[in-house]
Amino acid sequence: MLKSTSKTFLWKLTDSRDNRKAENWEADGKEITPECPAGWSIKKIELHGGKQEGVDIIVVNNGKLVLTVIPTRGMGILDVKMGELRLGWDSPVREIVHPAFINLHGRGGLGWLEGFNEWLVRCGLESNGAPGVDQFITNTGDKGRMELTLHGRIANLPAQEVEIAVDKEPPYRLRVRGRVDERTFFGPKLELWTELSTEPGSGTFRVADVVTNRGDLPQEFELLYHINFGRPLLEAGSEFLAPISQFRPFNERAATGISHFNRFGAPHKGFIEQVYGLKLLAAENGRTAVMLRNREKDKAVMMEYPLTELPFFTLWKNTASENEGYVTGLEPGTNFPHNRRFERLFGRVPKLRASESWNATVDFSVLDGKEEVSAAAEVISSLQKDHTILILKEPEKIEAEA
Amino acid sequence: MLKSTSKTFLWKLTDSRDNRKAENWEADGKEITPECPAGWSIKKIELHGGKQEGVDIIVVNNGKLVLTVIPTRGMGILDVKMGELRLGWDSPVREIVHPAFINLHGRGGLGWLEGFNEWLVRCGLESNGAPGVDQFITNTGDKGRMELTLHGRIANLPAQEVEIAVDKEPPYRLRVRGRVDERTFFGPKLELWTELSTEPGSGTFRVADVVTNRGDLPQEFELLYHINFGRPLLEAGSEFLAPISQFRPFNERAATGISHFNRFGAPHKGFIEQVYGLKLLAAENGRTAVMLRNREKDKAVMMEYPLTELPFFTLWKNTASENEGYVTGLEPGTNFPHNRRFERLFGRVPKLRASESWNATVDFSVLDGKEEVSAAAEVISSLQKDHTILILKEPEKIEAEA
Amino acid sequence: MLKSTSKTFLWKLTDSRDNRKAENWEADGKEITPECPAGWSIKKIELHGGKQEGVDIIVVNNGKLVLTVIPTRGMGILDVKMGELRLGWDSPVREIVHPAFINLHGRGGLGWLEGFNEWLVRCGLESNGAPGVDQFITNTGDKGRMELTLHGRIANLPAQEVEIAVDKEPPYRLRVRGRVDERTFFGPKLELWTELSTEPGSGTFRVADVVTNRGDLPQEFELLYHINFGRPLLEAGSEFLAPISQFRPFNERAATGISHFNRFGAPHKGFIEQVYGLKLLAAENGRTAVMLRNREKDKAVMMEYPLTELPFFTLWKNTASENEGYVTGLEPGTNFPHNRRFERLFGRVPKLRASESWNATVDFSVLDGKEEVSAAAEVISSLQKDHTILILKEPEKIEAEA
Repeated sequence: MLKSTSKTFLWKLTDSRDNRKAENWEADGKEITPECPAGWSIKKIELHGGKQEGVDIIVVNNGKLVLTVIPTRGMGILDVKMGELRLGWDSPVREIVHPAFINLHGRGGLGWLEGFNEWLVRCGLESNGAPGVDQFITNTGDKGRMELTLHGRIANLPAQEVEIAVDKEPPYRLRVRGRVDERTFFGPKLELWTELSTEPGSGTFRVADVVTNRGDLPQEFELLYHINFGRPLLEAGSEFLAPISQFRPFNERAATGISHFNRFGAPHKGFIEQVYGLKLLAAENGRTAVMLRNREKDKAVMMEYPLTELPFFTLWKNTASENEGYVTGLEPGTNFPHNRRFERLFGRVPKLRASESWNATVDFSVLDGKEEVSAAAEVISSLQKDHTILILKEPEKIEAEA
Repeated sequence: MLKSTSKTFLWKLTDSRDNRKAENWEADGKEITPECPAGWSIKKIELHGGKQEGVDIIVVNNGKLVLTVIPTRGMGILDVKMGELRLGWDSPVREIVHPAFINLHGRGGLGWLEGFNEWLVRCGLESNGAPGVDQFITNTGDKGRMELTLHGRIANLPAQEVEIAVDKEPPYRLRVRGRVDERTFFGPKLELWTELSTEPGSGTFRVADVVTNRGDLPQEFELLYHINFGRPLLEAGSEFLAPISQFRPFNERAATGISHFNRFGAPHKGFIEQVYGLKLLAAENGRTAVMLRNREKDKAVMMEYPLTELPFFTLWKNTASENEGYVTGLEPGTNFPHNRRFERLFGRVPKLRASESWNATVDFSVLDGKEEVSAAAEVISSLQKDHTILILKEPEKIEAEA
Repeated sequence: MLKSTSKTFLWKLTDSRDNRKAENWEADGKEITPECPAGWSIKKIELHGGKQEGVDIIVVNNGKLVLTVIPTRGMGILDVKMGELRLGWDSPVREIVHPAFINLHGRGGLGWLEGFNEWLVRCGLESNGAPGVDQFITNTGDKGRMELTLHGRIANLPAQEVEIAVDKEPPYRLRVRGRVDERTFFGPKLELWTELSTEPGSGTFRVADVVTNRGDLPQEFELLYHINFGRPLLEAGSEFLAPISQFRPFNERAATGISHFNRFGAPHKGFIEQVYGLKLLAAENGRTAVMLRNREKDKAVMMEYPLTELPFFTLWKNTASENEGYVTGLEPGTNFPHNRRFERLFGRVPKLRASESWNATVDFSVLDGKEEVSAAAEVISSLQKDHTILILKEPEKIEAEA
């Protein structure tokens, strides 16, 4: 299974073209890169029992961070742990649910929620956002109507190709790559290639995605990174930091929370979600940065990413009680997660030409300690500088429905 | 896998938290309880071929009864055999269908019927009964509309946890336990723990269920035991016995059969189902008893259960031709199997507060021989005593539709 | 696993009744029929990776042809290869998709297209054709409405029984048989038995199907063989040959192509499908023959089948660009692939009485070389003789909608 190249050790764990899927597999830094000072390991495990029967996970331990990727669920990331500091949340959904048990059309198009427990889950690719009817072109060239389901299909599609690469030279970067196809006849031929990578001993990691239109016709797509946090980063007094040019609430309920939209409360029984659509500011290199910081300002996560590729940012506040799901979502996207029909009217549904690719690289830093957190917060402040924030108090509305 | 406690031998066959699912497994009375006079065995088998690929069954042989439980299908019970006397029926569905092959939304919300062949199948937990639109509360706190599907989801959810326990002391009770979760984000967090138990050498067994609301908000639920019989207990001249306070037909078709509602005919080609809703009488201890008895009155099954927990009883007569499904259902429930919207209007949809549990224990006796049958029928007669039966000839109707 | 009879070697690879599914399996002519002059082999492989995880294929190599059958997808045939000459096409769907990943109700009832890449795929059995609402009889005997999905369910149902038979005597015919049930309670009890057979060393093969109504009531059914070709038989200048009595376009778009309906163009970006409904002529023995022939007239496939059993023929031209799917479908059927409601109005939905069977035998010849092709084309010409072709230029329409 090892196919080294001159630069990397390369293991192909899954490739549907070769009829290959590794059962359990493991690689260890001591053996593979004995000169690397930080110990690391990568292992692939097949899960069993209940609705997780047959689900694959890949656990990357870089010596400091432990990252768990789910090839069977569109290469989503279950969680990232740095000691006690976890990026992730406690969903009422306790298992890593195999897509065979999910009916996206269930619960009025909300069936996606029955598998929703990842830290990072991609929403897309044909569409994401709220369920509801949208038009599409049928086989006869006519306009048909289809029920879009919440957040699309990519999170419930297994990767056809999964490979592990480890750089042979320092810093011996560790890479988990996967290809997920969202292809159908008379429909989209979208391909996602994603690479999660990190260096041994590091508190940072990177998600680098490429979405390609493998069809011959222009193809709409939507991609939103639904990145979810519970404790310890989410708590009463946590704060969301970002360089903001404007924001607006998604609905009247969210409008009532505008004054403190970037601060979080304790778990509250019966809390109804509040969602805000943000436009951010970027540095000269085009990249922006956002942060979720705990109350003590000594623990945080920072995300840096290209604003041009991910121009819309959604903040989802759902500080409900623990058993209902105490969680906030930091969600950079190609669009806001309204129904695609709505987004199209506002010009927020990008199109890929034949063979065209979209790509984005998102860098994450797990920050532990007041100094680290403070330095990162500075970066965000410097992006905001003296830019004013435009607050649009009225939710976006479509005047005349199509 | 053996984790004995002081009182029981305990084997954990499946636990999704530990990533465990036993392949084939077996325990035998000779080895485990050598002093038990009745031989017994319990084995777990994974099925293969067609739509049953990957389905687990557990076969409990107590020396007299052979009970087959299906963890993959919500801990339903395929059948119970005592020699030639079988509790079960011959459905046109011949395989034990893996939930991955079932689309509950298929056939106008009747997709459940494509897997329906169990002797005892639970209908619920979020809802059961007829398909159709009902309201629910969406993530935005608004009322949404969802298509409820026939008899809900629990029968097509695999158990996350399955364990076998055998008491160390006489009478060495044999226990198969399973946990099935019906959990979703922005939706119910209902948990079923069920135990099927029996004593070696006995002709009786018990189903003891606990349903718990693991969410923080009040949660509606519905549970109906759809317990189905074909030959030999169902035949021309079979009779249903119960202590009845009132009953009514579900529709005009059923109304035509009121005079002989508790007696069964031979298979009849083109027979259309007749359904009756019953309220029963209970003994002082709160338990009621019903029976299905063959023509010769020498074979029967008796069920005893608490009326407070299962206040509504549905009798489903479907004496169609053999290949269409010659079957009757004896169905104690928290409600009648109308659509939940209908049931709610009549106050028959119970709610569980946060962490609250509902539980019920149903005892079954397989009766072979005129004396046994006669004695059991006496019990039912004594409950009826001189209580009159109120016959409501008009089906329930909602005057003004919501 | 070998259960020879006096006439055949017989291997039962799958039988859900016996809880049997062979993992990988292989038989070889050298060992089984050492006196057979042509080498042959048959092997069963379980696929892995992505959406094909757990899919079985059976590869029959008769020494000249290599045929790949997919038991997990209703015994469809992925492709047939004779050296470079392939019966098959390059669908945008690259994997052999396990039915667990298909939601037929997805994409407005077009979910079937997410698995569509076979050379020969059966459409049926309860219904085939375009999605849309049709009536059915519910459990209460009332008329209900259900959404029929594109091309029905048979292609996404696994075979419950699969066996391989090899004749002991010359010409040592090789046979792959499978049974696929489309059974549900309160619904159809249709059974398909199919046999794909071929002789070692031959360029011909046969598909022999029997559909039986295992219910006790009359049952509608529809079966259409969706037989699809890309390169090399489909190319600019390819031609469809058939003895035609009449044909009509399915819609206005198809009507524009009537003058050259039987000739094919090069891949054309944005090409919208054109579909024609044909009635054919048969020889005295009741069998008709059609052909797809390449531009050079030196490669072709011929299909011969009974016109009475498959009275309607659909020609589907979809010469779209390569990545969208450059393909044509030659589709004999019991009906045209309109929605069943439409077909019923035109009297094209057959019914099977209780226990009644329908059967059809389709013979395929893979033709390589001008002489072979020319001789076969002669057969078709002789069927047409001086029969005129009635061209109906207006698509069929229902005047008043039900």
